[in-house]
Amino acid sequence: MFEFEHTVEFKETDLDLLTVGELLVDMISDDYGDSIENGTYRRYFGGSPANIAMNTKRLGIRALAASAVGTDGLGQFLVEQLSRADMDTSCIQLVDEATSLVVVTKSRSTPIPVFYRGADCRLTYTEELRAALLRTKIVHFSSWPLSRQPVRSAVEQMIRDARQHGVLVCFDPNYHPALWDTREDGVKYIQSILPLVDIAKPSEDDAERLFGKDTPENQLQKFLDLGVKLVILTLGKDGALVSNGRETVKLDTLAAQVTDTTGAGDAFWSGFYTALVKGYTVRTALQFGLAVSAYKLQYTGAVVELPALEIFKAKYQI
Amino acid sequence: MFEFEHTVEFKETDLDLLTVGELLVDMISDDYGDSIENGTYRRYFGGSPANIAMNTKRLGIRALAASAVGTDGLGQFLVEQLSRADMDTSCIQLVDEATSLVVVTKSRSTPIPVFYRGADCRLTYTEELRAALLRTKIVHFSSWPLSRQPVRSAVEQMIRDARQHGVLVCFDPNYHPALWDTREDGVKYIQSILPLVDIAKPSEDDAERLFGKDTPENQLQKFLDLGVKLVILTLGKDGALVSNGRETVKLDTLAAQVTDTTGAGDAFWSGFYTALVKGYTVRTALQFGLAVSAYKLQYTGAVVELPALEIFKAKYQI
Repeated sequence: MFEFEHTVEFKETDLDLLTVGELLVDMISDDYGDSIENGTYRRYFGGSPANIAMNTKRLGIRALAASAVGTDGLGQFLVEQLSRADMDTSCIQLVDEATSLVVVTKSRSTPIPVFYRGADCRLTYTEELRAALLRTKIVHFSSWPLSRQPVRSAVEQMIRDARQHGVLVCFDPNYHPALWDTREDGVKYIQSILPLVDIAKPSEDDAERLFGKDTPENQLQKFLDLGVKLVILTLGKDGALVSNGRETVKLDTLAAQVTDTTGAGDAFWSGFYTALVKGYTVRTALQFGLAVSAYKLQYTGAVVELPALEIFKAKYQI
Repeated sequence: MFEFEHTVEFKETDLDLLTVGELLVDMISDDYGDSIENGTYRRYFGGSPANIAMNTKRLGIRALAASAVGTDGLGQFLVEQLSRADMDTSCIQLVDEATSLVVVTKSRSTPIPVFYRGADCRLTYTEELRAALLRTKIVHFSSWPLSRQPVRSAVEQMIRDARQHGVLVCFDPNYHPALWDTREDGVKYIQSILPLVDIAKPSEDDAERLFGKDTPENQLQKFLDLGVKLVILTLGKDGALVSNGRETVKLDTLAAQVTDTTGAGDAFWSGFYTALVKGYTVRTALQFGLAVSAYKLQYTGAVVELPALEIFKAKYQI
């Protein structure tokens, strides 16, 4: 049970956060539209769990990203970017499959990404990864590694081990049907995983993809009914609705200026995790999540330079 | 048997060439090297069989490309490019998988492409495709569609039907191990297909990947021994060595200026096919192949604007 006015008790460990999931190249067009001849694209470091690991390191906690990339130039690029950010890359596995890639062609309507799943599906639960799991306070994973084998089995085993060893299990239910094999019911699978999760942070779109259209309050309840202990439903410009099953609080956004929403959810997770680890109460950690998210919204790109967490305290009057 | 001084007898059909295989997006970097942050890439229409179909249409015969693309923006881009070139797109199948993509990051040494096989593997042998096969003179396919299922089964069935109905079977043995599932011996599979092929055009690199290093004469013989009736071994700046099993001829390159070798092999096939269909002898058709290839070598890009075949006659003294 998460009490809003309480801190979360963690064991003394030498790692704070382990993120598991996609590490990939985002290929994003400069121009709008699918018809342009010789359109140009730009190559970016991508993958939400890896972004969260980088963010939290900048905010001031010890984070490690686990993923798999190909033994190709794109995988080399991703590992180099992590190294440049002074991240430990010992849990980035090199596999004999193309580095995962997402192509996004800008569109005047909602851009439809094209997913190329490759290496990221091939993460295995090595002894090294198990050692990392057993020395962390929090394990975070996204929907991507659940969508395909063999990484799904690795994550299922990690969740079991995490629960057994008192590691906080946090999940981003960013379900997208295009990630799933068309022969499997991804929604049903995600619903089967939620009972094992301590904290989930769905967006309204995520909730709608999983449970159909409904009011925010009802969506929140569906996650709680499945056994999630703390549900953070983000509502964009309307802030967030958070419930621990007994109490529901509504939090306003702290964003004054919205330049680019890419990575805003990752920024929220990052502020929230960092504050929890630093011993703030759940309610204050949620405020830090909103603050870091608001900060990120001012800038373009999924990952922006972040100051230490304490800077946000004064800046956003937390 | 192909006699160098004879023409090839074709049935009267309303289609001359059907090409089967990859239709994909080539994402090619502007800059050199894998380490560059925010490196830029350019999106190109790609896929050798589709390029050959476009080329031969420009040279003056009736060509149709068969392939499968995804129902995504990249697939839409490829279909639009074909339409703009006034190509019939009725044999481009739309499938529920990402459009195939190749990422090439320029390198001071040999650039290593990263292959993302998707929709191109999903071509099926529809009634429409069978009808196209039965009304063409020549069917051309590359190694790509042989490397994966279900398209492999479609191509195997097409080869059987082509042989039964007197359609000339031509094959580009552009074998690359990265295209194959690592659990299968691709070389062995290609060798099992060669006995069904009338004309094959390996490069020296292709031959080496299939049979190991050897002299051009020996490589030629290996294809002949497997039952290929006419083997065109291209030797880059040294022209080509061609054999029908009884007679071997050495042809010099016609290239005076080499700006970009991309698509030179496709240009050769295009000139050769167009000349064969137009009733030139095998020897003259080979000359046209070398001429169109020489013309393309002057320009950058896989597909260049080509004049009608007859223009090459005077230009290259054929």
